[in-house]
Amino acid sequence: MFNKLCVIGVGLIGGSIASAIKQQFPNTEIIGFGRPEDRANLEIARQRAVIDRFTFDIKAAITSVDCVIIAVPVGSYPALFSQIQPFWSDHIIYTDTGSTKGSVIEACLQVFGKIPDNFVPAHPIAGAEQSGVAAAKADLFKHKRVIITPLSTTDPVAMTKIKELWESIGAQVSLMDVQQHDAVLAATSHLPHILAFALVDLLGRKDEQADIFKYAAGGFKDFTRIASSDPTMWLDICMANKAQIAPLLQELTTELNKLQHFLETEDHKRLFETFTYARNARQRFLDQFETYNQL
Amino acid sequence: MFNKLCVIGVGLIGGSIASAIKQQFPNTEIIGFGRPEDRANLEIARQRAVIDRFTFDIKAAITSVDCVIIAVPVGSYPALFSQIQPFWSDHIIYTDTGSTKGSVIEACLQVFGKIPDNFVPAHPIAGAEQSGVAAAKADLFKHKRVIITPLSTTDPVAMTKIKELWESIGAQVSLMDVQQHDAVLAATSHLPHILAFALVDLLGRKDEQADIFKYAAGGFKDFTRIASSDPTMWLDICMANKAQIAPLLQELTTELNKLQHFLETEDHKRLFETFTYARNARQRFLDQFETYNQL
Repeated sequence: MFNKLCVIGVGLIGGSIASAIKQQFPNTEIIGFGRPEDRANLEIARQRAVIDRFTFDIKAAITSVDCVIIAVPVGSYPALFSQIQPFWSDHIIYTDTGSTKGSVIEACLQVFGKIPDNFVPAHPIAGAEQSGVAAAKADLFKHKRVIITPLSTTDPVAMTKIKELWESIGAQVSLMDVQQHDAVLAATSHLPHILAFALVDLLGRKDEQADIFKYAAGGFKDFTRIASSDPTMWLDICMANKAQIAPLLQELTTELNKLQHFLETEDHKRLFETFTYARNARQRFLDQFETYNQL
Repeated sequence: MFNKLCVIGVGLIGGSIASAIKQQFPNTEIIGFGRPEDRANLEIARQRAVIDRFTFDIKAAITSVDCVIIAVPVGSYPALFSQIQPFWSDHIIYTDTGSTKGSVIEACLQVFGKIPDNFVPAHPIAGAEQSGVAAAKADLFKHKRVIITPLSTTDPVAMTKIKELWESIGAQVSLMDVQQHDAVLAATSHLPHILAFALVDLLGRKDEQADIFKYAAGGFKDFTRIASSDPTMWLDICMANKAQIAPLLQELTTELNKLQHFLETEDHKRLFETFTYARNARQRFLDQFETYNQL
């Protein structure tokens, strides 16, 4: 695999990748890179042997390694690519973990004027409400999907190496084009998060007036779990993928208007059909989710 | 407590009440009542000693007991009240478990012309996606809230007896007026369910075209859990409480339009404020939910 790696951004994702690689390949040397304000987090990462050492010097971090893994919030890519650009090497493989891919490609284009052949854009579909290396775990990607979104110019050797890296730590890799990735994630992840934030924003204000949360049950707890996600990270994702998210939000309000109309006109038949279709569709999701997670 | 009870509708809720009472008061005799098509379910209830016996004869079911507990879907109340009405007795306490209270009062008024003093409307806030007596359990109401919605005419003695019945099986009882109950439940339960059905309906259709569920993760699983609820029951609830639900749906679409606008105009500040408010509000819910559930 790789002998020496640099992880830029040793948080939940970067830290979990580093831990998993250390577990599989104890001899791989891993350097963490962060900003001076990340020192406490990087100290934890070193104490837990998630990384071997860390530096705040980008040149020292990325010039002596075989592979650079970018695991910072998607909003930080333009600045980060600018930092990396002077030291870019054709002999190193670069990859990332950003949850929106169009914005990553765009930031890369702006800085480099093209997408370097040895940059392999990727996105592990794993995460949690927690953040920081303290929440990292070596098995975070086990039985999880990773989407690689190669471009026509991406070096196949680099891509294969990144694919094998993910597979070696338990993930299943799919290939997808950038646009398709962003559309799928907007639907299955970004839209649900915005919806959960919207609902809890609305109900939180009612709760302040009428103390309604006292009567909310376990179903509400699960439904709103993703509203506990990090606001900074989600602002970033929403901005990065707004072209895909905004039309979906529009589709959803159309759907809600439709249900409101069925309700007000007492259209039992179509309301029942909608609920039944949804229940069956969720079962279809569940069957494949559980089959996959039992692999 | 009561020496002899009738449970009308021995499903998840009715069966769990019967089980819990049997556990606390082994000498209480419990008669189950259902329709002939419920025979298989009632047989299971009797085999598991959730009830002592069952009958399809309403007169035999309700005339020799101290207390009648109605635990049928809210849409069945008008027909059920009509069946009960000829045998109504001033010496029996009647209560129910319906998740909407305005519709129950309305059905009662239509059949009786008034709300009998010895009818105590109640609603245990507990349940699950499952239904039927096979899913019933004696501890379903432990540390759960039950809302009683007495009217000005409700007999205080009857109300106290029902309150004590719930407390004896582990629930914490609150009193609320009918309208407030329906508003609170519309917000914390009915709206989230419709939202989950709406989202999965929308995405299920996309999945049929583009196989998106394959890339949905654990957050999506939790967010959509309530979309696996019983469509018949939820059609019933939606119709019974549509006066409260429809305006909330309207408020939610306004909220979603607002977020869509923040997104399209790149209003970072207000989007961040919304996400942050929601995350904090959910923490407020969680703190009280968890404190309560550890009692």
